[in-house]
Amino acid sequence: MTLRFEPLARDGAARRGRLHLARGTIETPAFMPVGTYGTVKAMTPEELESLGAEIILGNTFHLMLRPGPEVVAAHGGLHGFMHWRRPILTDSGGFQVWSLESLRTIDEEGVRFRSPVDGRAVRLTPEDSMDVQRALGSDIAMAFDECTPYPATEHEARASMERSMRWAERGHRHYYREGPSASAGTPPGDLFGIIQGGMHAGLRLASLEALERLGFPGLAIGGLAVGEPESERLAVLEALEPHLPADRPRYLMGVGRPEDIVSAVLRGVDMFDCVMPTRHARNGHLFTASGVINIRNAVHAADRGPIDPECSCPTCRNYSRAYLRHLDQCKEILGSRLNTLHNLHFYLELMRALRAAIEAGRVEAFAREFLDRRRANPKPVA
Amino acid sequence: MTLRFEPLARDGAARRGRLHLARGTIETPAFMPVGTYGTVKAMTPEELESLGAEIILGNTFHLMLRPGPEVVAAHGGLHGFMHWRRPILTDSGGFQVWSLESLRTIDEEGVRFRSPVDGRAVRLTPEDSMDVQRALGSDIAMAFDECTPYPATEHEARASMERSMRWAERGHRHYYREGPSASAGTPPGDLFGIIQGGMHAGLRLASLEALERLGFPGLAIGGLAVGEPESERLAVLEALEPHLPADRPRYLMGVGRPEDIVSAVLRGVDMFDCVMPTRHARNGHLFTASGVINIRNAVHAADRGPIDPECSCPTCRNYSRAYLRHLDQCKEILGSRLNTLHNLHFYLELMRALRAAIEAGRVEAFAREFLDRRRANPKPVA
Repeated sequence: MTLRFEPLARDGAARRGRLHLARGTIETPAFMPVGTYGTVKAMTPEELESLGAEIILGNTFHLMLRPGPEVVAAHGGLHGFMHWRRPILTDSGGFQVWSLESLRTIDEEGVRFRSPVDGRAVRLTPEDSMDVQRALGSDIAMAFDECTPYPATEHEARASMERSMRWAERGHRHYYREGPSASAGTPPGDLFGIIQGGMHAGLRLASLEALERLGFPGLAIGGLAVGEPESERLAVLEALEPHLPADRPRYLMGVGRPEDIVSAVLRGVDMFDCVMPTRHARNGHLFTASGVINIRNAVHAADRGPIDPECSCPTCRNYSRAYLRHLDQCKEILGSRLNTLHNLHFYLELMRALRAAIEAGRVEAFAREFLDRRRANPKPVA
Repeated sequence: MTLRFEPLARDGAARRGRLHLARGTIETPAFMPVGTYGTVKAMTPEELESLGAEIILGNTFHLMLRPGPEVVAAHGGLHGFMHWRRPILTDSGGFQVWSLESLRTIDEEGVRFRSPVDGRAVRLTPEDSMDVQRALGSDIAMAFDECTPYPATEHEARASMERSMRWAERGHRHYYREGPSASAGTPPGDLFGIIQGGMHAGLRLASLEALERLGFPGLAIGGLAVGEPESERLAVLEALEPHLPADRPRYLMGVGRPEDIVSAVLRGVDMFDCVMPTRHARNGHLFTASGVINIRNAVHAADRGPIDPECSCPTCRNYSRAYLRHLDQCKEILGSRLNTLHNLHFYLELMRALRAAIEAGRVEAFAREFLDRRRANPKPVA
């Protein structure tokens, strides 16, 4: 284990911390932009750094199919391949394989599927996933798990969780003992366990216990944001929070909307990832303090004002809504770029504000104000 | 008239000069990246500046249809709209209207056409074109002309050229005397005349004389690169060159391939524009000193080397062919960005090298070496 989590402050259950990795330090709570295919869509690494991104996410499933782990490894890992020097977290591939549905078969060994790229048969086991993540040179690898569908009976959720725990054990053994070490010149990296158990608090706690017996340097909460109501998601977080070890980072996978992040920070989560800011940007949905605007709306056609007068991002400093709408109408690449800069800035600013609020002991008040403003405009306005 | 052309050196017919405009100085021979819809595709203004672009081109036809001249004017012109502070040259819209073919009718007054965006009827006369270019705030406006098809008989080419000269006179009068002045805070700008006359040297010289009677601060050569063989194009340039005024800039419109630019510089041309570097980039065709490579070719799949080991562009400094091919395969926006950076750098570097060669009195030798290398690899290699 090479990472070290430094708790700095608490405010209720919310935590302010610092995650030290070989390639850099991450201020938490942190948002990790998603770089599915070895690029955070439309952004350069330099732009991500200038926005203040301290860690990004890569997708094992997509990169193992294209360009393949050998090509990435020959570049000194994903860092060399995509020219990003700060930490990278890779998922295990489990979620994407699970989403293939009719194209895959799952058994105790792992998953077999047809590549959606070229149709060839591919196997992915907990051990394979560790090998690929090693080849990618990720700073934080994720355990290979089975996603529990929603809804699931307690019986189904238990069986799925127990398989994930057996896979976590195999992955842990392979990653730390049996499998290939990181390549020369590449930091060794660390592996996070993933808590499963569906919406059942008892199963979630049993999953946490199983992972704790193995000993992971960080813990993720998986299997949420799969269609459940917000109340069920928050109930899982609240059931887990008192039992999560204080000395290790907590990562809520794939969540989510700004209001979801705020709610989860209040419940002790430290790390987040989601494609929402980048995907929304390419669809013309832009985040502002008072709601989401749809830049495609004709109301912006002659609007010389910025997306958000309160925003200090490069897009809002230099470009009008009218120009951004024009770029969107003309399907210009620059539109996707400027929108993505704005939305990622919004998310990373939100994390900075949350960190400051925790340090100041006023995260509850911050969250209430933020959520009230968002609830006033839940849908894209204008 | 506000521009001033400063001849610095000659080497044979090739010229090294400096074009002084209110918004900046352009070292000639110069290449102008094309920003059709108010954006040089995939680039920010900051990137264009860092590549050394000193002037860009905007398309009157496209911008008058979307977002409309009023919207651009309300932003303080195209500079404010697209956040570009250096000079902008706008074409007149004539070429695009002419390309609409079945959707337009041309008579002595001007052109009427159906907007390809929304089908509404639009009129574009020489005077309208001047008004729109004023509204766009362009530093160099172009006369509205009729494009002579290729091939054309001498009779057809003469009739077309003579109409263009009558339109040039109307445009000149409107731009400098009758029409709206530039908006407050916007430099007044200048208007270039366009020499027409098809492939007929006598008509080209008659067109030049007609424009000289009106007095334009710069002269363009239009109606080339419309399908004619290279020999015919070069013959037109050679027929014109001894008669072109030495104290004014010469702009060869829409040309072209790197070898076309080199050949035209040898024949006294100062300014160029072409979509080739940006369009090729998005299609994965990348310029190198020894030919064009197609990054989509599987031979690059594991190639850790840069596009061109001789190139100092940001793409070649930081990214491998394998990574660029991967981005292209995944249709990632970053691929278009990095490819465009490289191709524009190639063109702008070529212009720097041509300027240095003229100053050193060795432009013939430079051109011979450059053309020999290009002829060795005329088609995309690998």
